[in-house]
Amino acid sequence: MEYYTPDNPIFATYMIAAALMGLKIMGQGWMTAYRMMKSGSGLVNPEDIQKGPFNPAPDPAQLEVNDYTDRSRRMHRNDLENIPAFWAVGLVYVAIAPPLWLAQTLMYGFVVMRLGHAVSYATRQTHEVRASFYTVGSLIVIFMALHVLAALLF
Amino acid sequence: MEYYTPDNPIFATYMIAAALMGLKIMGQGWMTAYRMMKSGSGLVNPEDIQKGPFNPAPDPAQLEVNDYTDRSRRMHRNDLENIPAFWAVGLVYVAIAPPLWLAQTLMYGFVVMRLGHAVSYATRQTHEVRASFYTVGSLIVIFMALHVLAALLF
Amino acid sequence: MEYYTPDNPIFATYMIAAALMGLKIMGQGWMTAYRMMKSGSGLVNPEDIQKGPFNPAPDPAQLEVNDYTDRSRRMHRNDLENIPAFWAVGLVYVAIAPPLWLAQTLMYGFVVMRLGHAVSYATRQTHEVRASFYTVGSLIVIFMALHVLAALLF
Repeated sequence: MEYYTPDNPIFATYMIAAALMGLKIMGQGWMTAYRMMKSGSGLVNPEDIQKGPFNPAPDPAQLEVNDYTDRSRRMHRNDLENIPAFWAVGLVYVAIAPPLWLAQTLMYGFVVMRLGHAVSYATRQTHEVRASFYTVGSLIVIFMALHVLAALLF
Repeated sequence: MEYYTPDNPIFATYMIAAALMGLKIMGQGWMTAYRMMKSGSGLVNPEDIQKGPFNPAPDPAQLEVNDYTDRSRRMHRNDLENIPAFWAVGLVYVAIAPPLWLAQTLMYGFVVMRLGHAVSYATRQTHEVRASFYTVGSLIVIFMALHVLAALLF
Repeated sequence: MEYYTPDNPIFATYMIAAALMGLKIMGQGWMTAYRMMKSGSGLVNPEDIQKGPFNPAPDPAQLEVNDYTDRSRRMHRNDLENIPAFWAVGLVYVAIAPPLWLAQTLMYGFVVMRLGHAVSYATRQTHEVRASFYTVGSLIVIFMALHVLAALLF
């Protein structure tokens, strides 16, 4: 039995979910860059307030925190607190050979929850809306981790 | 020789360690949420100071940094600076087929060090105590990475 | 066909790149520790301003943000925004069996870009220089993720 091959539909599911979450995280970096350039603010490095193609009109006030740019950084931080754990736990989850429907529900479910979280965060929904997406995504990773431990230890 | 199967005790060790570290990181998010709700402070989003189940008595002062909540975020950041590297380096370490006792010592040792670091951080031990756990965990990842490079390049 | 074995030169490439990036991230933690000790500033925990081997002359001003130490933390954060995505996407990229030259170009290219980014950041190059390294590294991960999705979905 070989687990880590695209011929295994569970691993193929993981590959798709992992690649989508990779695009999500890298895209968040570009959202921050776009918001920095559009608003000309929220820079974090003293050397960035130099005149250049990125910054045609430098001003020390550009180094102050502003919500528009910082919101994208907070979204990024929340991604980093959740997605790498999904990558690691989801990967080892493949090797306990869960039912395919369960693996697909958990993995694609996680992807959907993170997209819901991102949209809620970007559009300033209430904490309750944002936290609901966070909670389900987090519980998916916790469930997979406990399932791995149960399968190996009992 | 197949490396990535639970029948390989080295990979089974990695699976357990990776799942435990997944629980650790996800649990840190819940510690932050718990501390935000218990203290009603340390919020980071302007939209979170709206009245609702999460926040029955909103107040702009809730957006100020406080050590109780921020400590959990700093613990989380320290996890993110260490655990994903363990996941990645530990995973490829499996494929150089180290002795089982060595893999178990390094991987379970890393888990113990991170738990020691978390307890030291949460209970405000001195820098020396916290840094000792950090240092051993960090050296474990560095050792595994160098071992992988040595096995493949020499 | 087994993908995840050092006998597969594509996975061997990934193993080397993943280990090097592990050393990069762990090294960044040590750069922060070195800068904290050398400058005696940029500490983030109230309990760290206690007299001890790490901190022979405590002073509350040590808790203020300073660019020398914080720069290393910002470098670390940028690593965390990019390298774990490379680990995850690069890993599943192995299983779509790309041409070896392409895998080597992308994976070693990513390593070189991140080292270029680190040197630019540490030496305070302009945003344009730093962002160029960031951009190519980011596009490499995005390309690999899209390639995985295309290979599995079409």
